[in-house]
Parts: sequence; C-alpha cells; structure tokens
Amino acid sequence: MTGSGAMGPDARLLQMAERVLGAAPPQAARLIARESFLDTAACIRAGWSSPQRRAVSQMLQLSESKGASGLALLWGTAAHALDFDDFEEPGSTHPSAVLVPAILAMTARRTVTLGQMESAYVAGYEVILALGLALGYGHYIAGWHATSTLAGIGAAAAVAYLLELTVDQTASALSLAMTQAAGMKAQFGTDAKALHAGLAARNAVDSACSAASGIGAALEVYEAKDGFAALYAPRNAPGWPENPPCITDYPPFRKLSPSCGYTLRAIDAALQIAEQPGFDAAKIRAVQIDIAQPYHQVARFTQPADPHEARFSVTWCVACALQDGHIDPLHFSDKGLKRSDISALEARVTAIPYPLAPGLGDVSPQAPEKVSVILMDGTRFVSECAVQRGAPGKPLSRDDLLAKLGQCGFPAPKARAFLAFPGVAHFSAAQLLPAKICGPTV
Amino acid sequence: MTGSGAMGPDARLLQMAERVLGAAPPQAARLIARESFLDTAACIRAGWSSPQRRAVSQMLQLSESKGASGLALLWGTAAHALDFDDFEEPGSTHPSAVLVPAILAMTARRTVTLGQMESAYVAGYEVILALGLALGYGHYIAGWHATSTLAGIGAAAAVAYLLELTVDQTASALSLAMTQAAGMKAQFGTDAKALHAGLAARNAVDSACSAASGIGAALEVYEAKDGFAALYAPRNAPGWPENPPCITDYPPFRKLSPSCGYTLRAIDAALQIAEQPGFDAAKIRAVQIDIAQPYHQVARFTQPADPHEARFSVTWCVACALQDGHIDPLHFSDKGLKRSDISALEARVTAIPYPLAPGLGDVSPQAPEKVSVILMDGTRFVSECAVQRGAPGKPLSRDDLLAKLGQCGFPAPKARAFLAFPGVAHFSAAQLLPAKICGPTV
Repeated sequence: MTGSGAMGPDARLLQMAERVLGAAPPQAARLIARESFLDTAACIRAGWSSPQRRAVSQMLQLSESKGASGLALLWGTAAHALDFDDFEEPGSTHPSAVLVPAILAMTARRTVTLGQMESAYVAGYEVILALGLALGYGHYIAGWHATSTLAGIGAAAAVAYLLELTVDQTASALSLAMTQAAGMKAQFGTDAKALHAGLAARNAVDSACSAASGIGAALEVYEAKDGFAALYAPRNAPGWPENPPCITDYPPFRKLSPSCGYTLRAIDAALQIAEQPGFDAAKIRAVQIDIAQPYHQVARFTQPADPHEARFSVTWCVACALQDGHIDPLHFSDKGLKRSDISALEARVTAIPYPLAPGLGDVSPQAPEKVSVILMDGTRFVSECAVQRGAPGKPLSRDDLLAKLGQCGFPAPKARAFLAFPGVAHFSAAQLLPAKICGPTV
Repeated sequence: MTGSGAMGPDARLLQMAERVLGAAPPQAARLIARESFLDTAACIRAGWSSPQRRAVSQMLQLSESKGASGLALLWGTAAHALDFDDFEEPGSTHPSAVLVPAILAMTARRTVTLGQMESAYVAGYEVILALGLALGYGHYIAGWHATSTLAGIGAAAAVAYLLELTVDQTASALSLAMTQAAGMKAQFGTDAKALHAGLAARNAVDSACSAASGIGAALEVYEAKDGFAALYAPRNAPGWPENPPCITDYPPFRKLSPSCGYTLRAIDAALQIAEQPGFDAAKIRAVQIDIAQPYHQVARFTQPADPHEARFSVTWCVACALQDGHIDPLHFSDKGLKRSDISALEARVTAIPYPLAPGLGDVSPQAPEKVSVILMDGTRFVSECAVQRGAPGKPLSRDDLLAKLGQCGFPAPKARAFLAFPGVAHFSAAQLLPAKICGPTV
C-alpha cells in the first residue's frame, strides 16, 4: 500500500514514531501513568451514570457498533463527562480521558501487561506534550478543543505501541489521527464536550488499527505546506520543541473537584478564606474573582441551570466553597443546584476577567486567580492561588487520591491492589472497571 | 440533555435543519439522486477489490467494529478508492461517495423506501452545496479535503432525515458532524484519501445516531466567533448564500474515467485530438497541457509509480488518451502501468500550470485545460476543454452511464430494474450491492 512518496527532510512523524516505539519510561513516569489509570478509571465509574454516557450507549446500539472502537468512545465519554479527570498544561488537553480509554479498550481481547500499558501511556502523553509545545496556547485560543484534536493523536501513538507496529506504521497511525483531528471549543457547555474525548479515543484506536491493516498515509503531513501545522497552528506558534518533552517535566494536574480546570484555583483560594477566623458565609456582602480572560471565557456561566453549566461556572464553584468549606460532586448534581443558600450567595459573586499577558500559557502561575470577599461589616478577606492542589509541584497525597476515588465509587482495596499489581503481569480492563462497564453488550 | 443555552439570532443550523426535514425534491432532483445511487453502487463494486477496501475490512476486524458505522466506513472507502465517483463544484467535494454509503448503511436493518432515500440524498447534497458556497473555494485551497470536511456534514443531514429526527435533533446532528470535520488534502496520493470518504460517512451515521440518542450540541456552532466558519472558512469567504442552493442548479459531475476530476477535461481534449485526421500517436514529438495551478497541484504526479499516482497524473491520463483513443480502468491498473508505449509517450508530456484568476472556483469554465500536440513532422494539434462529458450541461446519456456501470461489473439488467424501482417501495442495500459486499461479517 502506498504511503507517501515524497518525504521531506523534516518528517516529524517518523521522529515521533521512533521515540514512541522506543519508550522505556523511568519509574517516576510509570508511577504517574499508573495513578492516571486509577484516577481515570474512577472518573469512568463516576461518569457512568451521566446522561452523556447513557446516550452514547444508546447511540452504539442504534448504529450497531461493537468492539474496541465503541468501547473507546463509550469510556472516553464517561471519563470526561463530569470534568473530574486530569489535564495538562502545554497542550491544554485532558490527556488521560483519551489515552486511558483507548489503551483499556485494546486490552479487552489482547494480551497486554500493565508495564506495556504504562509505557504506552507515557509515550502517548509525551506526543501530546510535544504537539502542545509546538502549537502553543494559540491553538486552544483559536477555538480548537485540544483534548479532541491533540490528545487523539497521542492516543493513536499509545495504541500503535500496544499493537507493536513498525516505525512506518506508527508514523502512518499518527498521520491518520492528524487527518481526523477535530473538535471545537464552541461545544463547551453541551454534551458534545464529553463526546469529544470519546471520539478522540475512538479515532485513536481506528487510526492505529488502520495503520496495522496496511493503510498508508502521508508521513510529511505535519510539515506539508497545507498540512497539520499550517491548518491547526496559530500564527507565531512556538514551533517544534528542540528537546523532546518528558511526562515528569509536565505531569498531569489531578482534580479534587469535578469542575472545569479553570475553576480550581479560585476554589482553592475560596477554601483558604473559608478557613480563616472571623469568616462567616452568612455575612457575605460581595465576592469578586479576578480571573484571566481566556480562562473566564470557558468557566463563564452564571446562575447555572444544569450540572454542565455548574461545572463551568467559576462563580458557582466559589459560592459552594465559601458556603460549605469544601467541594464535592453533590455540588454539581441536580439536587445541589437547587440549594437556595448557595444560589443566593452565587448572586453576590462577580467574576472580573483581566487580560492575559502575551506569551503566557494555560493556567500560568503568573496569571493567578484572586478571590476577594467583603462581609456586611466591611471585613475583607483576600486570597490568591497560582497553583492548586493536584497541580505539578503540589501533587495529591496517596490519601487525597484514595479519597477522591472513594467519591467516585472506586473501592479502596481494589485501588490498593491495582497500585501493587506487578508490571510484568497481564492486565485487562476488567481488573479496573466493574463488569457492567466492561459488559459484552458493546 | 443540554443543547446550547445561548443561541444567536443567526442559527444557521436550525435553518438548515428545517430545510432538510422539509425536503420534497422535484422529479428532476429525484432522478439525479437515483442515478447517483446507481453510479456510486457501481463505484463501490469496482472499488471492492482495492487494497484500501481490503485494509479497511481488516481494520474493522482488528477493532471488532460492526454495524451501520462500520458499513458506512467500508462502503465510503470503496466508493472513493478508484476516484471513479462523482463530484460537485461549489464545495469541491465527492458528495455521493459519502452520502450514498451513509444512506445505504442505514437501510441494513431499517425500513426505508427508495423515495425516502432520494429525499435524504437531495437534502444532504444541498447542505453540502450551501456550505461550499458559504466557504468558497478557499476552504479547499487552504488544505482541507472538502469531501471529508463538508460532505460528512451533508451526509449527517441525510441520515437525520432518514431517522426522522426533530428540528433540534437534526441541528444537533449537523453540529456534531461539524465538530468532527477533518481531513487534509496533504493525504492525496496515499490510501488516506479514500479512507476520508469512509470516515466522513461513518461520522455522519454516528452524528445523526448520537443526536437521535439525545446528545445535545451547540446550535450556534457555525457562526460562533471561534466556531466552524471561523476555523474552516478562509478570509474573504463568500459567506452564507442568500438563496438556498438546489441540486438541479449544481448537479454532480459524473466520471467516465477513474481518475482525479482535474484530469477529465485534459482527457477529453486529448481524446478530441486522437480522433483528428492526420494524428498518429506514434509520431508525437511533444505534448503540452496548460492547466490551472491549483488543479495541477492535485493532479501533479509524473511517471506514476502505482495506481494511486496514475489517477492523479494528468500527464499519464493524457498519454493514455492519446495512445489508445479511449480511457478505461485498465489504464490505472498495475498491468496498465507497465505498458512501455504509454510510459514512453508520457515522458514527452509536460503539464504547465497557469495561475487561476482570483474569484474563480473549482474547474471553472473560465479556466479550461488546453492540450497541444506537436508531431515529429511539425504538425500541431490543439484542443481546449472547459466542460467535460458528464459535467453539468453535458450529462451522460443513459447508455454512457450503463457502459460505465458495466466497466464496474454492475449488471445492466440490475441497473435497469433499479431505475424502474417504485419510489414508494421498501429498499435495502442488498438490492443494489452483491451479498459479499452487504455480508454479515461487518
């Protein structure tokens, strides 16, 4: 089958493919991967009852879809449905909601060790990082939902690793994933956002399986003059990174709240205020959140009408944190949305966007969120947060992680067993997800 | 399920959805649709033995995919594999290679009349026309393979019609197809080009089935400031057409040669020369083809190394036409490529690109192809072609169409029976495609 006749001197895809296939991550990288499997499996469990997941199951029945592609679509949608899954900064993606479903879907009828899964995860994650650094934050700003565009390409690399493809086949898998890269941020606030993660995972499985089956694709598609970089990179994009990025340089941000990544620093700032002596939520006159403009454009909803909007409402999240002194998934449930105490407080919270200085990327520590509270008696509380709990540099403790898993219905003994599982032993999705989620109906 | 809360005054998707669902095409439009089903079914048969189709079958086994989505992917890839399928001008797409597979895939387990299929086809085709007119030729020039980006959206409309969705669901189906729009022209010359048609058909089925299952999507995604038009339309795009386009205004170009649409006018010009008295292919000293630059960029291969490249080699096509006085699928087979008489002649054919005047669209009659032949004795033959056989204004005769179908292995009696099939009668893919192609393995 024909690949590309005219390969340029800059065939990034071959370089990426060689790196992917040679993946031999160090222990620190493997640990990140393993925690991502655990964290994401918990998000899939928690998202299993979401309307998006139920609709995708119905869709798969309607289109009579089965197999690994369908599982990747279903699990990816579930993983991202509650926005409880991790994210990373250079690419502005939710990497694990795409990588983990694609990898797990390939274990259903195939002999794979946990060590291979870890290597595949790290290789795919590092492809996402490289693309994110090359395209820069402007890719996301332009309107692309990078979880859909970039993470799918990384996941194709991960599946190519698991399928033990050749270098050329792996490069074709990357090319095929690039030529399916789509997903618009204009879908935020709708079911389509979660579906994007599922579609990206599904496309990743299909791209790697297509390459394995002999479908050739253009290897110079990244740098072609009307190719991937031309169509998806903004003007003044940074360009391909000189040094290949490592997962340990840019580990994922893990979430303690099932809400948009752009709400998390404001939540932490509000929680700090809630702990301060003299603070009383019942006496709040007004609350102001200073937030960078591009972040506010995503976390923009006020008076949220449904859980979707609540997850993307920085004012709602701050009101919950100030009112209760903690955040949990109930705050984003239909029941939680009916709480009049929080609604009344949210009406007094204002988010003020400020311009993001040029050159700053996603959730840059130089562009922190600031929460200012003024009580009826004039008392002021101000707290600023540049790095939230769960971010690189502030990793979750094992106990924090287990507590989050518990919120998602993931049994602690099963989590501990997974963390102790030998890397050389065969592993399948059924060891991480309950039978109803791995069920044979899809 | 949440759709979009903040719908703009310009929600094109709702307007499109209303038009799609109200589709009641006149007889002339129905006839075009019916001939497109026949022509495309013939292309699927002819493309069934292509390496691309075989690879996709293998991929579907590897990813364990089944059902309507898989069939749409398989049939779309087969329909486009030989580049023998029709195309249209406003969108620069191969509409039927996406529409027909998506529609046929929905008939496998569902009661559909041929009349409904015709209406669905016309409705989907007219969505493609509207998008093509709105985005203009610049969308294709920028690097998007419009068959993949735009035709998939039209096919989603067609499937929505067949599923009898509501207006909001149909608009969501269009939105979901837009958020999956991808496919780069940089893949031309590789297997991925044919795969694009299959992926677009598959995404169309999935988009409509997702909307039917309750997945909500942003209804203002076309006109959002970082939405579809912002990301996919070039600067100075014409914008949304004031009058909705009809298929009878822009009927498809049907092909008599299994090669790139940009080779067809040069082929016709060469065939005219081959018929002239005094012409002798054995005495050719040199041949020049004048061709618009953007067309040449696609039909650019010389000394083609494989059938892929031969289909996209205007010099090869002209050499075949001059040498044999006709074109048939054998000219694009491995055996045909080994013919030394044609290879020797092709070495004397030069394609000279000329700039396309601003504002001209795809295969504009104001930018014709010109073939100039000079014999050893100095005799010159010049022929220009602005509109090839099978183009709007020069439709194929019924006999021409039946002859093409025969080249594709489509039995004439079956074709005549299809043309006489009552519109009110139930129809399924099995009545147009042989059992091995409709087989239960996928």
